[in-house]
Amino acid sequence: MNEHISQQFNVELDDLKNQVMTMGGLVENHVQSACTALVEGDAALAERIVDEDFKINAMEVAIDEKCTYIIARRQPTAGDLRLVLMNIKTITDLERIGDEAEKVARMAGELIDLGAMKEHYVEIRHLGDHVRKMLHDALDAFTRMDVEAAVTTVAEDKKVDLEYEAIMRQLITRMMEDPRSIHRSLNVIWAARALERIGDHSKNICEYVIYLVKGKDIRHLDMKEVEKSIFS
Amino acid sequence: MNEHISQQFNVELDDLKNQVMTMGGLVENHVQSACTALVEGDAALAERIVDEDFKINAMEVAIDEKCTYIIARRQPTAGDLRLVLMNIKTITDLERIGDEAEKVARMAGELIDLGAMKEHYVEIRHLGDHVRKMLHDALDAFTRMDVEAAVTTVAEDKKVDLEYEAIMRQLITRMMEDPRSIHRSLNVIWAARALERIGDHSKNICEYVIYLVKGKDIRHLDMKEVEKSIFS
Repeated sequence: MNEHISQQFNVELDDLKNQVMTMGGLVENHVQSACTALVEGDAALAERIVDEDFKINAMEVAIDEKCTYIIARRQPTAGDLRLVLMNIKTITDLERIGDEAEKVARMAGELIDLGAMKEHYVEIRHLGDHVRKMLHDALDAFTRMDVEAAVTTVAEDKKVDLEYEAIMRQLITRMMEDPRSIHRSLNVIWAARALERIGDHSKNICEYVIYLVKGKDIRHLDMKEVEKSIFS
Repeated sequence: MNEHISQQFNVELDDLKNQVMTMGGLVENHVQSACTALVEGDAALAERIVDEDFKINAMEVAIDEKCTYIIARRQPTAGDLRLVLMNIKTITDLERIGDEAEKVARMAGELIDLGAMKEHYVEIRHLGDHVRKMLHDALDAFTRMDVEAAVTTVAEDKKVDLEYEAIMRQLITRMMEDPRSIHRSLNVIWAARALERIGDHSKNICEYVIYLVKGKDIRHLDMKEVEKSIFS
């Protein structure tokens, strides 16, 4: 009987994991599409991403409910409990990545309306690629509960921040040279800022993986300490 | 015996609430101090807020651990479980408000270094006051589990967003009139953006209160629907 219950519980945990991975896939798709809409000036694609953010929100609500149900019904032990709580935190970050993708799509729409030429935001193509890779690697680390991959991905965030700052400097120079470009450049800045925040949320997800597996709270340590505590 | 356990459990829940309120008080203090540092050009105060953000982070870790312990040990019923989960979410937002306060303090420091005059960022004094009131009201709604206050505070977020956009327009105009002010103005924009995000996080806390008390997930409904679902 107990075995039966624990088998059912394992099925529920697998289901939960699959749902989070499905949500992660949709979020990845939104980030990818928002970047494409921006870089290629695709207004219809931008509009679709804005219109469909509600799907990601609905997934968060459903998974959150499922987690609460699992804890209340199964009263998991400390280890399994941490796993479920970690899923709750992960979907909060995924939902917010969806919001940031929506912002990028909105900025794409505004830039198209402003008649900005594609060259004007080519700077952020690279940032977009970098952040998408970070998100992908974070979801991968989550799926495989892979601490080393998570640590490597956390370290990427520093590079994303530097890239973001370089874009900022470029855009400030452009605005000073041509004040008429200020409005347009600010939209590019907002899009870059949203991408940088997607990097932050991806980093959060990796930190949950490390915390769950290693049982150490690295969220507020610096990276040197993290590497020391993981690899020693 | 059961009564004894449940009494102990209630003591733990009260403790938890007090800890979250203490954390909320410290976060409020950081937001207040960061705004003061910015508006009054107080470099020492700005530095202290940057240096002391770790205290807020440590509080989040400690309270998060306590919540996990309570769930694992007491196996609370659905209602109490939701309450504990809601505390976990609330401290995540409080910790991020602390991060935003740190950003405001950093921008204050940079503006002081740039020799910006106080008149240059007087615009955001009002935004700072507004956001601080939102945070205060959100913590108040949390303390009293007051749904009506929470709904009213959620509605404030729209006004904060409008105020933020007005500041953006003013600053863009200034940058176009005087391109030499771009660097300075961008720092003011970052500070305003951080304040606007504090409004977002305060709104999140209010939504957790409403969700817990009403059992409806309003996080992804619009305000008209919210008012209808709460006040009807």
